[in-house]
Amino acid sequence: MKKIINLSVLILGVAFVSGQTKEDSIQFNRISTEILNNGKGYNELKELTKNIGNRLSGSQAYEESVKWAAQKLKDAGADKVWLQEVMIPVWERGKESLHIKTSNGSWKSLKMLSLGNSEGTGGKDVSGEIIMVKSLEEYDRLPAEKVKNKIVFFNYPFNQGHVQTFIAYREAGAYRRTAASLTAKKGGKFAVIRSLSSAFDDVPHTGNMRYDDNVSKVPAVTIGNTSADELEALLKNQKVTAKLNSNCGMRGEKLSHSVIGEITGKKDQNVIVVGGHLDSWDVGEGAHDDGAGIVQSIEVLRTFKKLGIQNNHTIRAVCFANEENGTKGGKQYGKTAKDHNEKHLFAIESDAGGYAPRGISLEMDNTKRDQIKSWVNLFLPYGVYNFEGKYSGSDIAPLHEMGVPSAELVPDPQRYFDIHHTSEDTFEKVNRRELLLGSSVMTQLIYMIDKNW
Amino acid sequence: MKKIINLSVLILGVAFVSGQTKEDSIQFNRISTEILNNGKGYNELKELTKNIGNRLSGSQAYEESVKWAAQKLKDAGADKVWLQEVMIPVWERGKESLHIKTSNGSWKSLKMLSLGNSEGTGGKDVSGEIIMVKSLEEYDRLPAEKVKNKIVFFNYPFNQGHVQTFIAYREAGAYRRTAASLTAKKGGKFAVIRSLSSAFDDVPHTGNMRYDDNVSKVPAVTIGNTSADELEALLKNQKVTAKLNSNCGMRGEKLSHSVIGEITGKKDQNVIVVGGHLDSWDVGEGAHDDGAGIVQSIEVLRTFKKLGIQNNHTIRAVCFANEENGTKGGKQYGKTAKDHNEKHLFAIESDAGGYAPRGISLEMDNTKRDQIKSWVNLFLPYGVYNFEGKYSGSDIAPLHEMGVPSAELVPDPQRYFDIHHTSEDTFEKVNRRELLLGSSVMTQLIYMIDKNW
Repeated sequence: MKKIINLSVLILGVAFVSGQTKEDSIQFNRISTEILNNGKGYNELKELTKNIGNRLSGSQAYEESVKWAAQKLKDAGADKVWLQEVMIPVWERGKESLHIKTSNGSWKSLKMLSLGNSEGTGGKDVSGEIIMVKSLEEYDRLPAEKVKNKIVFFNYPFNQGHVQTFIAYREAGAYRRTAASLTAKKGGKFAVIRSLSSAFDDVPHTGNMRYDDNVSKVPAVTIGNTSADELEALLKNQKVTAKLNSNCGMRGEKLSHSVIGEITGKKDQNVIVVGGHLDSWDVGEGAHDDGAGIVQSIEVLRTFKKLGIQNNHTIRAVCFANEENGTKGGKQYGKTAKDHNEKHLFAIESDAGGYAPRGISLEMDNTKRDQIKSWVNLFLPYGVYNFEGKYSGSDIAPLHEMGVPSAELVPDPQRYFDIHHTSEDTFEKVNRRELLLGSSVMTQLIYMIDKNW
Repeated sequence: MKKIINLSVLILGVAFVSGQTKEDSIQFNRISTEILNNGKGYNELKELTKNIGNRLSGSQAYEESVKWAAQKLKDAGADKVWLQEVMIPVWERGKESLHIKTSNGSWKSLKMLSLGNSEGTGGKDVSGEIIMVKSLEEYDRLPAEKVKNKIVFFNYPFNQGHVQTFIAYREAGAYRRTAASLTAKKGGKFAVIRSLSSAFDDVPHTGNMRYDDNVSKVPAVTIGNTSADELEALLKNQKVTAKLNSNCGMRGEKLSHSVIGEITGKKDQNVIVVGGHLDSWDVGEGAHDDGAGIVQSIEVLRTFKKLGIQNNHTIRAVCFANEENGTKGGKQYGKTAKDHNEKHLFAIESDAGGYAPRGISLEMDNTKRDQIKSWVNLFLPYGVYNFEGKYSGSDIAPLHEMGVPSAELVPDPQRYFDIHHTSEDTFEKVNRRELLLGSSVMTQLIYMIDKNW
């Protein structure tokens, strides 16, 4: 396309702006112009993903990312940077393989990942016949004797029909979380789930699972959509045997750290938090999940400093430890805030991918919510229109439980579950402008809250 | 991120729906569910881009795409499919190279593309010293004797600071269109422009240029951002010579075709048009520009048929010929509509990339505009909130000039100018869900217009 378009019509006009709103509108523009032109988040994300890579809690890479984040917060001009101690669970994957044998008698390897926090087979082959269910309801109806000593294939597909992919993720998430214990309760040997994936490929998506108390901890593994389709087709007309060999499991706890940097409030030291999580799953590079949120949060501090915006309150960027398999960083942060009697005014997290922002989800009382929604005309030129969500991030949930008004950046959700928790969540999947716009919107929101609260 | 979120809050509620609105809301949901689950556009785009590839007007590939599009319209269930004759200009690139020589005396090859419609050097080397300007204003101030026999490097950068990338494109577009004639008017040998590109890479972006009347037709070529940066740095402290050898040029006209398919109106044969352009530049695969618009338009017809929506008026999908370097397809379509006295109710084009839709730009009188804007709550759950644009597509401009209310799909603009008119505009850059959502929004809008107009 090559048409020439009228400049003015593309900028959604703010029709009747008061002097105050005009000042804010100018500040919004300064912020976005600075970040789109000079933002460092994209290059920082490249460092984090390419020099350090994935960084599961407990790994050496995570410890490297702690040092890296502290340095980046200093570079951004934070007045104070520190590490917050937190005990984190250690889960290790180790070597793993899944094979299937069909009626022709030959074994075939499937691409697979053990789910996070799952126990393995202890390096031994565990095999059995596969039975398939398409839903939890179908599984509930199966008598235990049909499951005993079998491998259960939970073949629930990600529902592409939802416009909001997080709804499809939530629906399919029930399988990831519960498959192992459901299998154990009926005497099955291990569980295989179809990945929580919107992609049409064979990439397995890992993610957190949990064991019910007093139930045998059988392994849970996941396979990509293509393998799941093939397995489903095979099971229509023959018996299929699966053989799992894996070494994953929990390895106790370890002392580690969240990383915090702040610029001190000029009026008081009440705290505004912006954050993401520094850890990632142990595949890919943790680029969208959640390297994006980390570099966006650091960019907020840098931009306040660079533009010389005088912040009334303390603005703190928090790089939380261990979101993926324990949320211990968020819990510790909340506990410390309480212990130290710190007053938190507001917290926002970016943990839904580094895509072009569309909204801000608000978990707070209606008065504050309505106030933020009244700023919509300031945000519209930046593509931010949706303030209807009522959730915030998992790392800041402990703050919210203490009464802190909380929020989450809402980026476009269409591409996230193609690559979420996979080897494909790499730097190359992140677009510079989309990532930087997310930083810009969080900076703009914090500017407004700092000024008005 | 792994949090569980409340399902209901993600769906932007339509607060007080009338019975009528509820019926429409259900129809909107049927449309999007059908397309997201069963849409064929993504696989069709794969066929078009991978089996045929780029398809400049006049090329054999374009003729193949004509046959392909006619077949796809038939497959979609069109009641009638035909080819519309149109005379199109033929421009061919041929072999081309650009070298620079610095003070150390060795020649270095730069990645480059001649601009579309540019004349070449006729296969001969044309060389001279490069002079650089950063803006048209700077060029205007240069006396002709400083330009005479020189190569002019128009080094105007794409302004990353604009949130709306189309504004930056428009600003930089002036250089692409005018550089050659401006250079010729002061006796320069040829023009080199920095590409209209939001990417930080060395990929040159071609695109249309034009010659002023009565001015010598000197060549215009473009280089990627990295090469432009390097050249800029070199020119700071030394003389640089450039040498161009190219064979491009206009090769007269040729009879070709636009492709049209329609489903006949049940009440009358007044026409609603949905379209994109079938041609592309001669690099990459023309995936976002505008294979996306083609498969989205075909999907609209398929969806009406598949869901059995009884359309009052005739709905016509038009695959326009020659948008990129002549818009002859759009002009011919408008002329034929006039000659045949066809009444057109509405026309919409998709030609801004196959990204997640954000809005619909409306070029029509205020009564109709306000009516469409009153449907905003129906569109919000699909991420479509922006009805403020006042332009439509270049292929349907002739219809608009005849008084037809016109529109364009407004997708997210952040990634488009990374790959627009380049070797990088490939199928892999298109996301299935984003592409299909664009088809869904156009189908929803056409459903409303068909019902209410």
